[in-house]
Amino acid sequence: MAHTPGNTSLPLLITLGDALGIGPEIILKAVDRLPAPANLAVVGHVAVLQRAARLLREREDVPQQVLARIEHPCDLATLPPGCLAVLEPSERPEGWADLAHLPWGQVDARAGRAAAACIRAAVQWTVAGEAAGLVTAPIHKEALAAAGEPYPGHTEMLAAESGRHGQPAEVRMMLANPELKTVLVTVHCALREAIDQITCARVLQTLRIAHTSALHWQAAPRIAVAGLNPHAGEGGLFGREEIDEIAPAIAAARLEGIDASGPYPPDTIFMRARRGEFDLVVAMTHDHGLIPVKYLGVEDGVNVTLGLPFVRTSPDHGTAFDLAGKGLADPSSLLAAIRMAEALSAGRSPAPPRQTRSHPASGSA
Amino acid sequence: MAHTPGNTSLPLLITLGDALGIGPEIILKAVDRLPAPANLAVVGHVAVLQRAARLLREREDVPQQVLARIEHPCDLATLPPGCLAVLEPSERPEGWADLAHLPWGQVDARAGRAAAACIRAAVQWTVAGEAAGLVTAPIHKEALAAAGEPYPGHTEMLAAESGRHGQPAEVRMMLANPELKTVLVTVHCALREAIDQITCARVLQTLRIAHTSALHWQAAPRIAVAGLNPHAGEGGLFGREEIDEIAPAIAAARLEGIDASGPYPPDTIFMRARRGEFDLVVAMTHDHGLIPVKYLGVEDGVNVTLGLPFVRTSPDHGTAFDLAGKGLADPSSLLAAIRMAEALSAGRSPAPPRQTRSHPASGSA
Repeated sequence: MAHTPGNTSLPLLITLGDALGIGPEIILKAVDRLPAPANLAVVGHVAVLQRAARLLREREDVPQQVLARIEHPCDLATLPPGCLAVLEPSERPEGWADLAHLPWGQVDARAGRAAAACIRAAVQWTVAGEAAGLVTAPIHKEALAAAGEPYPGHTEMLAAESGRHGQPAEVRMMLANPELKTVLVTVHCALREAIDQITCARVLQTLRIAHTSALHWQAAPRIAVAGLNPHAGEGGLFGREEIDEIAPAIAAARLEGIDASGPYPPDTIFMRARRGEFDLVVAMTHDHGLIPVKYLGVEDGVNVTLGLPFVRTSPDHGTAFDLAGKGLADPSSLLAAIRMAEALSAGRSPAPPRQTRSHPASGSA
Repeated sequence: MAHTPGNTSLPLLITLGDALGIGPEIILKAVDRLPAPANLAVVGHVAVLQRAARLLREREDVPQQVLARIEHPCDLATLPPGCLAVLEPSERPEGWADLAHLPWGQVDARAGRAAAACIRAAVQWTVAGEAAGLVTAPIHKEALAAAGEPYPGHTEMLAAESGRHGQPAEVRMMLANPELKTVLVTVHCALREAIDQITCARVLQTLRIAHTSALHWQAAPRIAVAGLNPHAGEGGLFGREEIDEIAPAIAAARLEGIDASGPYPPDTIFMRARRGEFDLVVAMTHDHGLIPVKYLGVEDGVNVTLGLPFVRTSPDHGTAFDLAGKGLADPSSLLAAIRMAEALSAGRSPAPPRQTRSHPASGSA
């Protein structure tokens, strides 16, 4: 995760996502907003991207980049300025040729297969050391399922693909915006199941992954651990997970040299981290962690997978099928994801450090 | 909850809270910041407030108001300008005389008993129609327990006291700041128990209380209902509470003419409400609702009890024993609570209405 930036650095790969969602158009819009020459290539489908480019041209939102198909990431160096490189997967799944003619905004197994093929190709180039990391445009869970893929989302698929290439990974999801980073202990399951998953071992492993990852961009990260229950359990009165699982994990992490503290009441710890008291917050549940990151707007939110042997970021939103094909989708979150992946591959902090400020009477309602 | 504002309106009563916490000093600071003459009285302890006033004078943060003890809320009209009226409870509990000499920032049964006596006296005046409502300074749960009070907090005590005066109330907690109002279905219990409490009947009753209360300050409130599970259960894949309990409650509420919608994914609904799509959000758990209200700072957050036969607000923080007696505590949240109680008793909105804005590609990570 610490490649040298500059001309000699490896490129980032942007995967197409679901061809019938907003992915193709936000990729073109986001790349147009980057300072040239951007050291990146799209792993995608030339005709699908051409269709998105026509769409934007009709709206007079003319893409500046000319699409140029290349065969290999190292060909990027041979392209003239003003070209956006497109890598197509060498193994094209069934229905690939139809993709640019399907109606926008629909679940289609062909789009699911194509999205998965692009991700697999991109992982292969990345683990082979030919790319610095991935920025993934949104996929659609149902299209992926229709394509017979067993994964609920990118994160699980990337961990499995990484393992298939001999680099098994235990991963955690981090959501970050310019003022807050949260790492999640549990993700996509019912809240009751999430509570069952909150064990000392899992919290400790999350702290290790968060700490090791954060060391790529800063020294001595200060990690705050949020509790699970109201008021972090109020001394056992409102639940015992803090006492039985979370506090022992924090103690064990501290013995390993990790600057972890807590468990803190979930309702005030994100505000405290936002004000600079901590560098990142480990949250027990999907929504404890995501509500504050998304509260000020999804535009700046970036999803980062920690624990993989390469950098991976993605925008903090879905395929937005209702918006797809209209040229109206906002590329801000994808742009933020590209910038964050650039920073992470260069070993820079994903967001500028914030000043510690004092704060007034605190407490929990 | 819809008294006429102006000279003829009933006063607000501010209860002392825990005499050894930051309550006394933030009351004096907050009242000083209000435009004179404020139509309010403190239900408290003259000597305790005098001690707080001396403390502020030592820090050259001189209170402008002269403390003036009165016997009855209607005596307020007889006071000259520049006086802060103090009502003492007629029944003084054991240890009352010691209160102004106890060390700051400690759990003490005498302070717990005094806090409870002030709340009881204030409720009595209010349900008798002699005051418009209550603003409660923070109490300490352990001091209350040491005093033999069975209540975990204000909300439960106020509901019980209201019932004792022949006005039984089912109450809900609302947290509000100038940009967001959330009403909680469950509050102070372990998250596992909170999930068990999320029944169709309880969600429906919350919607009724939220709707009826909001009608005091606006026409046709738009209520968004947050789900419990990630992605609001993803169609049953991540939990069934949305399908089995929450959606039926929303449907039933709509049949009663309540403009309720959802269940929405918890991670994006607060952002959407903040942007003006909804007037308030019903949240299933304490922390889903409180994380976003507190995220931008606890200073502007106000706790409002809905469902009582009178207005009741409080600041969104605790007794801050670590800060008490230093004169440093920030009165902003109490000041916001007083202003919100003034607005609610006058039938005005607790926060200015916000403009509806369009928003970009949405979705859930």
